[in-house]
Amino acid sequence: MKGKTPAESKTIMTDMVLPGETNPLNNLFGGELLARMDRCAAIAARRHSRRIVVTASVNHVAFSRAVPLGSVVTVEAKVSRAFKTSMEVFIDVWIEDRESGSKNKANEGIYTFVAVDETGRPIEIPELIPETDLEKSRFAAALRRKQLSLLLSGKMKPSEATELKALFMEE
Amino acid sequence: MKGKTPAESKTIMTDMVLPGETNPLNNLFGGELLARMDRCAAIAARRHSRRIVVTASVNHVAFSRAVPLGSVVTVEAKVSRAFKTSMEVFIDVWIEDRESGSKNKANEGIYTFVAVDETGRPIEIPELIPETDLEKSRFAAALRRKQLSLLLSGKMKPSEATELKALFMEE
Amino acid sequence: MKGKTPAESKTIMTDMVLPGETNPLNNLFGGELLARMDRCAAIAARRHSRRIVVTASVNHVAFSRAVPLGSVVTVEAKVSRAFKTSMEVFIDVWIEDRESGSKNKANEGIYTFVAVDETGRPIEIPELIPETDLEKSRFAAALRRKQLSLLLSGKMKPSEATELKALFMEE
Amino acid sequence: MKGKTPAESKTIMTDMVLPGETNPLNNLFGGELLARMDRCAAIAARRHSRRIVVTASVNHVAFSRAVPLGSVVTVEAKVSRAFKTSMEVFIDVWIEDRESGSKNKANEGIYTFVAVDETGRPIEIPELIPETDLEKSRFAAALRRKQLSLLLSGKMKPSEATELKALFMEE
Amino acid sequence: MKGKTPAESKTIMTDMVLPGETNPLNNLFGGELLARMDRCAAIAARRHSRRIVVTASVNHVAFSRAVPLGSVVTVEAKVSRAFKTSMEVFIDVWIEDRESGSKNKANEGIYTFVAVDETGRPIEIPELIPETDLEKSRFAAALRRKQLSLLLSGKMKPSEATELKALFMEE
Amino acid sequence: MKGKTPAESKTIMTDMVLPGETNPLNNLFGGELLARMDRCAAIAARRHSRRIVVTASVNHVAFSRAVPLGSVVTVEAKVSRAFKTSMEVFIDVWIEDRESGSKNKANEGIYTFVAVDETGRPIEIPELIPETDLEKSRFAAALRRKQLSLLLSGKMKPSEATELKALFMEE
Repeated sequence: MKGKTPAESKTIMTDMVLPGETNPLNNLFGGELLARMDRCAAIAARRHSRRIVVTASVNHVAFSRAVPLGSVVTVEAKVSRAFKTSMEVFIDVWIEDRESGSKNKANEGIYTFVAVDETGRPIEIPELIPETDLEKSRFAAALRRKQLSLLLSGKMKPSEATELKALFMEE
Repeated sequence: MKGKTPAESKTIMTDMVLPGETNPLNNLFGGELLARMDRCAAIAARRHSRRIVVTASVNHVAFSRAVPLGSVVTVEAKVSRAFKTSMEVFIDVWIEDRESGSKNKANEGIYTFVAVDETGRPIEIPELIPETDLEKSRFAAALRRKQLSLLLSGKMKPSEATELKALFMEE
Repeated sequence: MKGKTPAESKTIMTDMVLPGETNPLNNLFGGELLARMDRCAAIAARRHSRRIVVTASVNHVAFSRAVPLGSVVTVEAKVSRAFKTSMEVFIDVWIEDRESGSKNKANEGIYTFVAVDETGRPIEIPELIPETDLEKSRFAAALRRKQLSLLLSGKMKPSEATELKALFMEE
Repeated sequence: MKGKTPAESKTIMTDMVLPGETNPLNNLFGGELLARMDRCAAIAARRHSRRIVVTASVNHVAFSRAVPLGSVVTVEAKVSRAFKTSMEVFIDVWIEDRESGSKNKANEGIYTFVAVDETGRPIEIPELIPETDLEKSRFAAALRRKQLSLLLSGKMKPSEATELKALFMEE
Repeated sequence: MKGKTPAESKTIMTDMVLPGETNPLNNLFGGELLARMDRCAAIAARRHSRRIVVTASVNHVAFSRAVPLGSVVTVEAKVSRAFKTSMEVFIDVWIEDRESGSKNKANEGIYTFVAVDETGRPIEIPELIPETDLEKSRFAAALRRKQLSLLLSGKMKPSEATELKALFMEE
Repeated sequence: MKGKTPAESKTIMTDMVLPGETNPLNNLFGGELLARMDRCAAIAARRHSRRIVVTASVNHVAFSRAVPLGSVVTVEAKVSRAFKTSMEVFIDVWIEDRESGSKNKANEGIYTFVAVDETGRPIEIPELIPETDLEKSRFAAALRRKQLSLLLSGKMKPSEATELKALFMEE
């Protein structure tokens, strides 16, 4: 299987914030944004693997800026690292100011998807070949995040999490 | 402010999986479940703080079991630790077998919410007093998760993450 | 078939009132609440019968208090009486005040469900064994309501509605 | 205030049954139909009163025939009797066979609405003048149903429910 | 196949504008109205043909008046001309003033549908026999619109569009 | 006001076809696609004008290929010509084959939007400067379409539609 670049899975989902999706402060509901990010990331994972994909985990999502009613929101997803049958996908969320046209980062998230066949069984996928500096740095960090995820779910011992351990030792 | 127990914020949201919420494998969409968990956890955070609450981050969600169309799904959320103005909420998701009535764990997630006043500014909340063994263990782990979150977002140095560091050192 | 208590079918559905569900007075739409009550009651009927269930009738719903946008609403359903293949389900709806945490009754409804097999044919169900005083009083009234329903739909003559007739005679 | 005929409030809502509104048997969800009936009846009540209206109660809904996915459903509502500030609305639901074009009655329901001013206070409405035989018979029965509703909610004693009592006495 | 009149396909869809369907000016979203018009017109096409129908094109929709939140909107569709396997449907949209009860035209649209069999293949349909003056004038114009549509999509040369050409020549 | 290129308003909305949006043939509903195209085109119009925009008309939409459940659909919109206060927007819709990754054109549409101020009054916008050959050809055709639209709505006489007339005369 030939490897693919993040550019090949890049997925853009631009849409408005409608009144039915807002909370009492008139901002986009956290849960609604999580669902949009999931759909966008799933398409990126599908573009990389050309398989049916299912969400395996949400590794981290930070809501740094509220998204007001009526905003134009751009969700952008790219595969950041491929493992044997699973992929980590990075999602960046931007809000656009109507009058100035400038874009501000609103949120950032990391999801993991598994590629499956028609019966739901995991299936092998192409590797990811990062190109830009940001893609390379996210690729490197993905291994630490995977160890962390295994660690938190009790599937790996702290002593085996070599990448993570190094993070604390090096100081 | 008087502390509160997890039982005081416990929130149960039982509902069915409708056809409009499923993916091509006829299972509940990951994103749809993330949105339900967010609404349920937000209510738990609101019950603890009696304030307007906004989602600050999703720390971790593991999808361990697919949720088929027509399932009865129970989402249960409880505050697991309160910090100055933010709360960690643990969410357990169960699927119920129609014929046997037995319940199986489908998913588990950890979200963080911030309590805010009417203008959106963070505001102080009561502390959490864990009671059961599970509540006490989740309470203890919450501090490590908070350090991890600060670390991953670059707001804390590895050397300051004392709780996390100990995790690796002790081996 | 072993009888079951109302506690065994008790179903709790807590959720928020979102902007997309409100009327011009900014309160939850009557129809939207009827749909939530139906889903919650259907789960209770399914828990009692462990069968597929379909709504047979709505016997009565009284909207005694408006449910404002942003409210936390708790819908609670329990089977109140089981007949041969049908069940009456009682649904109580509560609104929770965010600041005080107190709960107020907003609505109350009575629905009837029929248990069916995979082809849609009615199928026998366990009897209901009421425990508390409220459960016993609702159980007794269910027979009068059933007669009333048959009477209103022309399937029973006034002279046969013995339970109902007694209600007027006893004065 | 000049009285109005049922024809003046007649409201027709024809729509399809979409996949997102069906239950596991591929029929329209009871709750979804209740919500459509509520919206249609509310428009009829608004046309009669020319006021904002809110759902006061559902008096009875009988689901006599399942409504399959893809059906064309016609909901038709007319005010059946006006009281001082409230109106009873009768709703008939029809399914249309695509190939023969014939219509079959699927459901029937009776809802009560209250007319309110901008602050939500009940306000007087025109009386209803029934014209056809069916309209006259529903008009007459509406008083019995109102007494029944007051009786069931404990707001009227059996001895005061003269209309209802007569129903049983006359035999 | 026996021809049919527009009255036989007439379809009325009355509904409210709910908060989840509005834009930042608190009016019904253009796209939401387009979707309602499509569903209503599809039912009219189905009533004329008694077949499954699919949208082939939107020929023209003019939004002449904004539809505010809370409005009662009546969408009315009738087949305006039948070709071999396709039908043109005219859709008129009215808003109703709550206080005066008067109706104002808000929009008007023309859609084309194709009748298909269960495998999706086009199938012959009855002809349309216009009755009123308005129906006759829409019937005549439908041919010009069909030529225009073929012309714009490059499937007809200007020289072949005899009906259209006459429109400009006659001056 | 400085002119803008189509590239500056280009808007991409990639999303999946969910089960709640499909018709009885399991393809995306025409009306649902019209609504997505409207939202995407409205964002393009807003990016060009940096104003609130409202849909003025749908000039033409051709549905050339069915969009099956589960498809990844890319809607791409660009302003094709700006008039004094209104803009024509071209929308191209693509479906992506999961296994081969190839894209096929499914639909194409042309909508017109008006830029308005906070009170809903039309307001002047920058001109459009087409760059590519396709953009230049769509820009030229936009004037003919505008005349056609005015003609069809009776706001222009055939003799004044000079651009359109030439189309037929030149043969």
